[in-house]
Parts: sequence; structure tokens; C-alpha cells
Amino acid sequence: MAVLDISPLRYENDKLMILDQTKLPGEEVFEEMTCAEDVWDAIYKLKVRGAPAIGVAAAYGLYISVRDYEGDMDGFLKYVKEKGDYLCSARPTAVNLEWAIKRMTAKLTSQLDDASSEERSDATPVEVGDATLGERSETVCGACSNADSAKNADATTYGLTVLDAKQVLEDEAKLIEKEDIAACLAMGEYGLKLLKPGMGILTHCNAGTIATAKYGTCLAPIHLGQERGYNFKVFADETRPLLQGARLTAWELNKAGVDVTLICDNMASQVMKNGWVDAIVVGCDRMAANGDGANKIGTSGVAILAKEYGIPFYMFVPTSTIDMNTPTGDDIHIELRDGNEIREMWYEKPMAPDGIKTYNPAFDVTPAEYITAVVTEKGIVYPPYTENLKEVFK
Amino acid sequence: MAVLDISPLRYENDKLMILDQTKLPGEEVFEEMTCAEDVWDAIYKLKVRGAPAIGVAAAYGLYISVRDYEGDMDGFLKYVKEKGDYLCSARPTAVNLEWAIKRMTAKLTSQLDDASSEERSDATPVEVGDATLGERSETVCGACSNADSAKNADATTYGLTVLDAKQVLEDEAKLIEKEDIAACLAMGEYGLKLLKPGMGILTHCNAGTIATAKYGTCLAPIHLGQERGYNFKVFADETRPLLQGARLTAWELNKAGVDVTLICDNMASQVMKNGWVDAIVVGCDRMAANGDGANKIGTSGVAILAKEYGIPFYMFVPTSTIDMNTPTGDDIHIELRDGNEIREMWYEKPMAPDGIKTYNPAFDVTPAEYITAVVTEKGIVYPPYTENLKEVFK
Repeated sequence: MAVLDISPLRYENDKLMILDQTKLPGEEVFEEMTCAEDVWDAIYKLKVRGAPAIGVAAAYGLYISVRDYEGDMDGFLKYVKEKGDYLCSARPTAVNLEWAIKRMTAKLTSQLDDASSEERSDATPVEVGDATLGERSETVCGACSNADSAKNADATTYGLTVLDAKQVLEDEAKLIEKEDIAACLAMGEYGLKLLKPGMGILTHCNAGTIATAKYGTCLAPIHLGQERGYNFKVFADETRPLLQGARLTAWELNKAGVDVTLICDNMASQVMKNGWVDAIVVGCDRMAANGDGANKIGTSGVAILAKEYGIPFYMFVPTSTIDMNTPTGDDIHIELRDGNEIREMWYEKPMAPDGIKTYNPAFDVTPAEYITAVVTEKGIVYPPYTENLKEVFK
Repeated sequence: MAVLDISPLRYENDKLMILDQTKLPGEEVFEEMTCAEDVWDAIYKLKVRGAPAIGVAAAYGLYISVRDYEGDMDGFLKYVKEKGDYLCSARPTAVNLEWAIKRMTAKLTSQLDDASSEERSDATPVEVGDATLGERSETVCGACSNADSAKNADATTYGLTVLDAKQVLEDEAKLIEKEDIAACLAMGEYGLKLLKPGMGILTHCNAGTIATAKYGTCLAPIHLGQERGYNFKVFADETRPLLQGARLTAWELNKAGVDVTLICDNMASQVMKNGWVDAIVVGCDRMAANGDGANKIGTSGVAILAKEYGIPFYMFVPTSTIDMNTPTGDDIHIELRDGNEIREMWYEKPMAPDGIKTYNPAFDVTPAEYITAVVTEKGIVYPPYTENLKEVFK
């Protein structure tokens, strides 16, 4: 049993390679990202998708975007800000995108601050005063200094060279990736405690290895189980309109050697009635404080069927996805998307009358009452969620 | 408010025109049927589909197939049998196809029998004996008689000429069409009693005017309501994998001027949660004696959601579709279809991994407990169905 080697991106030998998920399942192409524009395009065109995977791609992407910078630290900081803002514009609603960019720049700032204080303490009795970034800008004029003198000046002013700063970004991107893998593995292990070898498992959309740094959220226990010979039988809802189940989940599970059967969304009831499903695992895009969980459109329907057929319904939710400031699912805004995704996307010819009215919500909210357990990287949370989710954050 | 003028076929001026539903919604093409092969092809390739519509098409189709016959009655009867068998082979599982052909030939036989007895009583004191079809064949040898003498001989032997026999078939086809329209109108009127103006109505698959001679089963009240200014707001499930909802229901309702919104199957839960659905109407492929109803895959899931959201679920079932010899839904065989319908049909490129395992049931069974009422052409039937369906047949 080979350990899972499918991930949405690879960072090796200073090269960032992104799996173009829009070409799946037909073609398996890794594309090298050489500049900010490449990364922006990959995120914008959904070549890389899934909240955690976007975060990791954005982190490495920011480093890739600024690593060839030549100039002083002030210019570098502006450059980092500029490229970060640019990358964030690729998918403004993708929370992990902004989160990753902010974490990268915050790390850089904090390292500069730390190094700067060390410098100050090393350099005593030189008077530095309460330097701020604004004052620093005045100290060294990037526009009129050459790179070498700038570097020296930077090292003196910031305690770090531009080269050091680049290293901080690269290290932080690696850390973000590592932490995401660890979180997924933890969710996988907790998830496995809820499952038994040979079980039939139904999933909706794709919260798999290619939606995260590795292993996935709700598919993590399936990948771990596969490595350990659990022989799960998985049913993948195709997940209209964007077909993430057919294109991505069926692909990644099949590639990992998992016994996977693709069904249309409307077949889930029959599959459950047949007695083929022992558990349902799904991801989550945003969970409210009361345990209501927004996820890919159709999830709430699957949850209702699960309740009716007496099948446990597990939602896999990294703690970063739990928003304790959102009281209930009613407070979660549901994104509406272009009706052409239903009417004609994918098709050789229009499959619905030209211009027919559509309703195309990207997500729905599964009320907490239908969720048997919430699996986080910190442990399994059971109802009542209003009380028990709070415990996770203590 | 124009009276609905959409039907799956037109028989006018001795011409049978069939709407090629495989070209919908892109093109609206009526194709003339000039021979048995045309009709076989239209049924086989689903140019005409929907149980009642297939029955009507087959009835006219049989007449079209034999109307140019030249020869004696014995040859004609063999010819009718041969063409009927051939048409039935187009879709062996389509119950209404065989039903229509059998009804046509039975009518012909009974008319011949009636005419023959009249002939016998008119012709007394000529001794005829207890003639059977076999003996008749010996009386007139089609092979060696010319058409005129055959006609005369036929008229004497059968009481009808071949021309009369052809007329019997044409009249019977017209009657089948007329009866189906009447049944649909009756279901429409009964259905309307369950609905109120302005209601939101969700439907699955297509049990509409183009699936019957006219008006449809579950869409009949919507078409009638439209003619009467009811302003229903209809949600059409697209109905994967064959997309009858997107291609056909959305098309016919839109064409009839009904306010229709197309959704993916997995969006039904959200639409119901939004409070937009006051009633659900679906057709039925076969109902068991206890009220379990087999219908297009996904129907049972819609029924479960309806129960959960407290929305009435109405199944429209012509009495010809109620099989009192099938005790429960468990006794209904579910047809499994080719997985390529899920994997690659309609798509420009494969939408799932090559050869990925699928489960593709064409139908599912909605247990009687989820069905608020069964609407037949003879009236509305409420639970308990085991008792109340029997009443319908009294």
C-alpha cells in the first residue's frame, strides 16, 4: 500500500508546480509557476481550488512572485504588498487566499521587527528611537541607492537583508503547507475512529487531497484507510453543476486505488436505500457557532436523506473554517453563480432552452441537527454544538 | 391565454409528424413518418418518449406502416402482425408500446369477427360453420388471387374489405390519442383541485405534454392553470443523467409561457428551504398495489425532502400505470443503464475518469408513505392506498 502521493502542488528545487485541475480527469498536467501572473491565473481559473490548497498555493505564490526582486528592503516591502494585493484579487471571496497572504506578510513584518530590536540591542549605545516602518522609509531611499548599498543599509536598519526576508517568506510558505498536511492527517485519524473496515461511504463534491496540501479533509480518513487496507467502498456524488465529484473525487480516489463508484446526485437516495452506505463524509466551507455548516450545494439534501435512512452524517471542518462570530447558518451568505453553468457549461450543445431562468446557489447550509459529528484537527465534536464548539477554541 | 398547442406528434391530412425530442431544446423539428422503419427509429432513438406518447405514436405508426398494403385480407392480417411485432421490438420494455399494438390488432380482430357474424346472419341460409382464422385462410388463397377478386372474397369472408380494415386501424389510433388527451385533461382538472393560484411547484423529469398525447400527466394541471391565469412558479429539476427536466420540461413550460426556473437536482433542498415550493408534482412509471410508485431516478429523494420540509407530494398516475398484480415497490425491477450516460454523454470531453465504475439506475421507488395523494384520471386517491386504489378499479 503506497502512501498517498497525490497533491495539488509540488514545491521542489525552488520550483512551484501546480496541478491544473481544470484538465482533470482527462489530463494530469503540472504547470510551473514562474511569476505572480502565473499564480493569479491558476487561482482565478480554478486550476488550483479548495480553500486550504488555495492558501498553500498563494503562500508559495507570493514567495515565487517576489524572489527575483532586486533592490532595497523598502522597495521589497512595497513589492511584497503589491504582489500580495494582486494575488488576493484572483478570488476575492476565497477566505484562505487572503488569510495566507496576510499570514506571510505578518510573518515578514514580525521577523523584521524582531531582527530590528535585536539589531538595536546589539548596536547599543546607538540611539535608534521608536522607529516605525514610515520612518525607516525615510532612512533609506530605495530610489537612489544601488542594490549593494541598499542591502547593507537594510541589514543595518532592519536587522535582515532582502535575501533574509525572501527566506522568511519561503520558510513560512513551507510551514503553512506542513501545518495543513498535519491538520488533514489529524482529521483523517479522528475520522477513522468513526469508520470501520469495509464500510460503504458516500461523499459529495471534493474535499480531498487535491483541495488541501495533502490528504484532504473529509477524504483524509479514506486515504488513510486505503493505506491501511480498510477497503472502503466509496460512492461519489457527481456534484452538479461543476462536477467536482465526477471530475475530481472519482479521479483522486480511483488514482489512490480506492473502490469508488460515481453516481448522479439524484441517485444518493437509492444507494442509501440499497443499504450500501454506512456513513456520509463531507467537507465544509464555513461553520457557524451553532454547528450549521455551509458546504457545496446539495449537502443539505444528502444530510436529510441520511437522517431518513438512519445513516451517520459527518462534517469535516478545520477549526479555521469555524466562524464563532457567525451565530447561525442563516447568517451565512449564499453565493449565487451564473446560470450558464447549469444551462450549457461542459455541453457540446445547449442542454436547456436559451436564456431559461435558473437558480444556481453555490452552497447550502446543513442545519446542525442533521450533523452527527463535526471532525476537526483538534478532535471530534458532538452535539450540542453551541456548547461543544466553544470548547475546541479554549 | 392560448390553449396549449404543444404535442409530441401531429396526425393531419393522413400525415404522421413526430417532434424529434432528441433535438430539443436547440431545434424544434417535426419529422414525417412514412413507413414502419421511420416509426421504429423514432421510438428506438427516443425521438418520441414518455409512456403515453409512445403508445399513441405506435398506434398511428402501425396504421402508417400498413396503409399502403396491396393484397388480400389474409396477407393484410399477416402484414399487420409482422409490422406490429417489428414496432414492438423498438423498445421492448416500454409497456405502452406493446399495449397500443395489442389494442390495435385486437380491435381489428374483433371488428372482423363482428362483421363476419353479421355477414353470416345476412347470408343465411348459406352454411358457414364455425369459421376460424385458420379456416378462413384456406377459403381464399391470397397467393393466387388478384387484388380485386381478393377484396371481393375478403368482403364475403370477413365482412370487411382490406380498405375497411385499414380504416378500423386509423380510427382506433385516433381513439387512443383522444382517450389519452381526455385522461390527461381529467388528471389536470383533479390536479388543479390540489393547487392554488400563485403557488410554487417543483417537478422532476418530464411527465408533460410531450410525454403524452397532450397536456401531460403531472404537468397537465400546470398547463391548465396557465390557460386560466394561475401564475404558478415552477421549479424544474434538470434530472441527470438524461436531463429531461432541462431539455424537455423547461422547454415545454417556457414555450407555454409558464414561469419556470431550472435547477440542478441537488438544489431542490435549498429551493424548498427558501419556502419557494408549495407542492411537488411528479409522474409515475409503475405503481404497485400498495401505492409505492416507481418513477425517474431521484423522485424518492425529492419525496423525502418534501416530507422533511412539510410540502405535499403528488404523484400523477393514469390507472393504466397502476399494476394491481405487483404487491409492493420491492417487486418492481429497477432498470440499470449504461454508465457512459453519467461519464461522458452530452460532454465535449469525458467528465469522469475513463472507465470509472458507475451505478446508473433509471428509476427509484417512492414508498407510499411519502405520497400525499395519487392523482388518476378517475379521481384523487388518498392513503391508505392498499384499500383505496382497489376502489378505483371497481
